[in-house]
Amino acid sequence: MLALHFDGNRVRVTDVAPPREASGSALVRVGLAGVCDTDLQIVKGYMDFRGVLGHEFLGTVAEAPANWLGRRVVGEINFACQHCPQCEAGMQRHCPNRQVMGIQDADGAFAEYVRVPLANLHAVPDSVQDAEAVFCEPLAAAFEILEQVEVEPDRDCVVLGDGKLGLLVAQVLRDAGARVRVVGRHPGKLAILERLGIETVLFDAWRPQPAALVVEATGSREGLACAVRTVAPRGTIVLKSTVAEAGIFDFAPLVINEIRVVGSRCGPFAPALQALESGRVTVAPLISERLPLARAEEALRLAARPGMLKVLVETA
Amino acid sequence: MLALHFDGNRVRVTDVAPPREASGSALVRVGLAGVCDTDLQIVKGYMDFRGVLGHEFLGTVAEAPANWLGRRVVGEINFACQHCPQCEAGMQRHCPNRQVMGIQDADGAFAEYVRVPLANLHAVPDSVQDAEAVFCEPLAAAFEILEQVEVEPDRDCVVLGDGKLGLLVAQVLRDAGARVRVVGRHPGKLAILERLGIETVLFDAWRPQPAALVVEATGSREGLACAVRTVAPRGTIVLKSTVAEAGIFDFAPLVINEIRVVGSRCGPFAPALQALESGRVTVAPLISERLPLARAEEALRLAARPGMLKVLVETA
Repeated sequence: MLALHFDGNRVRVTDVAPPREASGSALVRVGLAGVCDTDLQIVKGYMDFRGVLGHEFLGTVAEAPANWLGRRVVGEINFACQHCPQCEAGMQRHCPNRQVMGIQDADGAFAEYVRVPLANLHAVPDSVQDAEAVFCEPLAAAFEILEQVEVEPDRDCVVLGDGKLGLLVAQVLRDAGARVRVVGRHPGKLAILERLGIETVLFDAWRPQPAALVVEATGSREGLACAVRTVAPRGTIVLKSTVAEAGIFDFAPLVINEIRVVGSRCGPFAPALQALESGRVTVAPLISERLPLARAEEALRLAARPGMLKVLVETA
Repeated sequence: MLALHFDGNRVRVTDVAPPREASGSALVRVGLAGVCDTDLQIVKGYMDFRGVLGHEFLGTVAEAPANWLGRRVVGEINFACQHCPQCEAGMQRHCPNRQVMGIQDADGAFAEYVRVPLANLHAVPDSVQDAEAVFCEPLAAAFEILEQVEVEPDRDCVVLGDGKLGLLVAQVLRDAGARVRVVGRHPGKLAILERLGIETVLFDAWRPQPAALVVEATGSREGLACAVRTVAPRGTIVLKSTVAEAGIFDFAPLVINEIRVVGSRCGPFAPALQALESGRVTVAPLISERLPLARAEEALRLAARPGMLKVLVETA
């Protein structure tokens, strides 16, 4: 089958063997897959991954027990062992034996087919369109913040970064009742939020006012230092960016101002699907381009361009 | 009067003007003052401080309203304005207008006299000796952890660092019911904790087991990276070390393992005094040396030596 494969050196669309059978899993015919900044980081060496890239997808179950067959699905990307202490404590996303789709030891979704454990599948409600459902994985990552931090109504929140994740995080925090302000460098991206009634400011015009909660979603090494300058004493920074390179950082302000930094990765799919179904989160304006699987290399290059938001790969 | 003064370049015992009068404050005749690693960092450039060093002290009130006069006291080191939003929210230790004794814009306690706002004074119970009370400030910093993090009974806690603060933190966490293990490089320091029934291990013999709570009290730039390798997924690191230099750090594990890093600085004096009064925390074995104020330069040099714990300066 056709897939976007990374061999540790070069990323290219090529013919690869289809996924092998595995008990307790479904073979999913991929319909749409989204490019995430993590994919771009992986190609720079992050996670030392080899294989088929891609972890945001919408598809149709092609091989599975009858109750799943033919259903439209999205899937959680952490494939857990289900029997270690972490799994037994309900922390499957932190299973030490996990594979992660398109990121760690498991092939991903820029392919005609992808294999997904049945436990990871979520059926997509009929009213949610394919091009909305494909946002479920990054939207779940935005909802993870609500699992980690108490967001009180009218709490002052600053989101640093107007990329795909920043735009989703801003909507999730606003939906939770927070007073949200998004700081970004791209007028076109910020305009999407303004149309949704969310306050934004261009980075160059921004005068930081101390905020109780700052979400760092810049995707850059400098993001955390900027967050530290923005957060109020005893405030919380949610750290969303994973970058391939280590950076120089001054920890003294964290101690002096007793700041809390909370790393935040994957999140729960159920509230993400509900938010898409109810229309409380809007994703359609976030789609910049759609390309067929045969042009997936180009999709990655496009996604890396400034000003781009979500690039979708059409695999069916 | 005699004082240990830092001019930004050289630290020396010299004759300085006694503290000026200030309303709402007490003049305290210093009895004992302790050397803290922060003093050593300041001499390396941390906080860009100029003035009399020292912020851990026990003294006797020499000039103040009658109800304080002659009383044995310790004092909180953050001098707050008492009328800004932070102060009104009860966060005096984070007042943006604060001076900090011997650290920021206020002269310190390696001196015959120090001036302290009345609001910062705490009377020392009769049963607490001078050489115990002088530990109140660093012990309060250890108690700050209990204000920031829920320490459940039998929770696995690792304290990194067997310095003065590490030895106090270990006792405070044990007193809160945690299962504490202290990792250090100094058999003599660890032996103090072993005699108090607290488990210890030498760094070179240590095999990290994931712990829910890790307190980083190494005083070194490498401490946080070590804490990240030790903490369990979704666990908490309390960051206590302030170091003068920025360091290179890889943030990806914080995000991947959704770790919480909590900066922690000064703490509440009341529980610290209570712990000293009740004997729940033992400080006497932590005293390595006592020198008169005239030899305070030597006290700083001694405190910087490996194997040293608390060096006290006798000012009266």
